[in-house]
Amino acid sequence: MGADLRLASEHRCFGGTVAYYRHDSQVCGGEMRFAVYLPPQARAGKVPVLYYLSGLTCTEETFLIKAGAQRLAAELGLMLVVPDTSPRNTGIEKEDVDWEVGTAAGFYVDATSQPWASRFHMFSYVTRELPELVGRSFPARMDREAIFGHSMGGHGALVCALRQPGRYRSVSAFAPISAPMRCPWGQKAFGTYLGPHTEAWRAWDTTELLRSGGSRLPPLLVDQGTSDKFLVEQLKPELLREACEQSGQPLTLRFQDGYDHGYYFVSTFMADHLRHHATALTA
Amino acid sequence: MGADLRLASEHRCFGGTVAYYRHDSQVCGGEMRFAVYLPPQARAGKVPVLYYLSGLTCTEETFLIKAGAQRLAAELGLMLVVPDTSPRNTGIEKEDVDWEVGTAAGFYVDATSQPWASRFHMFSYVTRELPELVGRSFPARMDREAIFGHSMGGHGALVCALRQPGRYRSVSAFAPISAPMRCPWGQKAFGTYLGPHTEAWRAWDTTELLRSGGSRLPPLLVDQGTSDKFLVEQLKPELLREACEQSGQPLTLRFQDGYDHGYYFVSTFMADHLRHHATALTA
Repeated sequence: MGADLRLASEHRCFGGTVAYYRHDSQVCGGEMRFAVYLPPQARAGKVPVLYYLSGLTCTEETFLIKAGAQRLAAELGLMLVVPDTSPRNTGIEKEDVDWEVGTAAGFYVDATSQPWASRFHMFSYVTRELPELVGRSFPARMDREAIFGHSMGGHGALVCALRQPGRYRSVSAFAPISAPMRCPWGQKAFGTYLGPHTEAWRAWDTTELLRSGGSRLPPLLVDQGTSDKFLVEQLKPELLREACEQSGQPLTLRFQDGYDHGYYFVSTFMADHLRHHATALTA
Repeated sequence: MGADLRLASEHRCFGGTVAYYRHDSQVCGGEMRFAVYLPPQARAGKVPVLYYLSGLTCTEETFLIKAGAQRLAAELGLMLVVPDTSPRNTGIEKEDVDWEVGTAAGFYVDATSQPWASRFHMFSYVTRELPELVGRSFPARMDREAIFGHSMGGHGALVCALRQPGRYRSVSAFAPISAPMRCPWGQKAFGTYLGPHTEAWRAWDTTELLRSGGSRLPPLLVDQGTSDKFLVEQLKPELLREACEQSGQPLTLRFQDGYDHGYYFVSTFMADHLRHHATALTA
C-alpha cells in the first residue's frame, strides 16, 4: 500500500480482502474514498481490474455490501475497485440539499460550472487519478481493465468507455441512465455541472457519443428490470438500443421481468456480468 | 398472504421474492416486523422453512441485504424467514439508550422482569407466533423447519433448538454467543430481561442446556472468525465445544483464519450453512 493511502478498514472475504481507503485527491482537490476487493489470486501475482461505478445516494461501501460480487470475483480472480460517488464535505454551499446533485451525485463528469468546477471532477478521478493510484498500490494488471456500473454509474461506465475507445476490455451496466440529456436526472445534473449550453452536454451522453463517434466498444451487456420505477422517465433503454443500432455498436439488452431498480435486482444478475468481464479480461 | 399481514415492500430476487411484512403481534403486544424470501419453487408447491436470527443492532433487512443467501436458497428451494431482533417503539423508557439491551437486542428470550416482560417475548415470537403466521400465509412445509443465526442470533438459534428437541431438522450458527451467562453481553441482557437470580438464566444458556439435557440436536455446524474482536470476551466458542463434548452433542466447530465478526465473514460461509440445512430439510 502506498504512503498516500489511508486504510479505513479491512475485512477478510471469500479468501480475499475487502478494504476501504481514503486519500488526498489532486483532481478533486480534497479527500476521496474508495474500496478495493483483492481476490485470493492477488497474493500470488497481478490480477485484472474491474471498476464498478455506483448510483445516486451510494457510497464506496454499497456495492461490496449489497451486490454479492466477491464470491465470484474470488473464483474468477478479479480485483474490484469501487470509488465513492462524489467528493464530500467540499464546503460548496448547496452540496447536501438535493440528492440528485452534489454529494453522492457526481455523475462521473468533469464539472466546468462554478462552484462545482472546483471539486467535482469525477471523470478524471475514476479514469486517471484512481487507476494510477491503484496501479502503484496494488497487484493490478493495468493493461487489463474493465468497467461496469448501476444507474448513474451505468451512465458513468458507458461514458468513461466511449470517451476512451480501446481502454476497457469489456463494459456492462445495470439499469443505466442511457440518455442523460433527455431525462430529468441528467438535465438537472448536466445543467448544474456543465452549465446551460446543451452543446457541451453531448460529450457526456451515451447516446450522443454513440451517434457522433460510431461503434467503438466491445459488445455491451445491459440488464434492465421491467418493474424499475425509473425506467420510463429516467433510464430510457430504448434510446440506448436505438443509438447502438444506428452506430452498429453490439448490444445485449435484457429486460428482466418483474425486477426493480435496487440491489436485489443487481445481485441477481451479478454473476452474468462478472463472467462477461472475466471472459474479456482473461482472454 | 393473510389479512393480518401488512406488506411493506416486495422485490424480485433470484427468480423468487424478498418481501417485508409488519403485523400486530399477540405475544409481543404490538407491531412486529419480519422478512421472507420465497424461492421460485414456492410458486409450484410448499417448500421447507429456514429461520435466520440476526445479531445486535440488526433489523429484519440486514440478512437479506448483506448475507448473499438468496442465490443459493433459490437453487435449493428454501424459504428464508427473518424476524426483527426485538419489538420496537414499545414506550418502555430505556428501550433506546443502550445498544446491548432493548431495541434490536431482544436476545430471543421471554422476559420475566418488568418493564420488559410486557413486550419482550422474542422466544415465543420466533418459535410459536411467527411460525404459525408463516404457516398460514405462505407455501411453507411446516413439518420441515431449520434454524440458524449470527452472534446474538446464533445464541438464539441454539437455544430455540435446545428448548424444543426434535423440532428443527438442522441447526447452525455464525460466531454465536455460546455461553451468555459467562459473558458481559449475556449477563447484562439476562439481568435486564430475567432479573438478578441467575438460576433462571440457565434455561436460556446454550452450554447450560447442553449440560443439563444432554445431546439432543442434530449435528451442529458453527463457524467462528479468528480475527473477531468479540471472540474472547463475548463469544467463547471453547465453552460450546466443551459442553458439546461433555454432553455428546455432535459439533463441527470451524475456526476461519483472519475473518472478523461482520457480514463479509457470514457471506463467505453462507453456502456451507445453506447446504448443511438443505441436506437435512430435503432428506
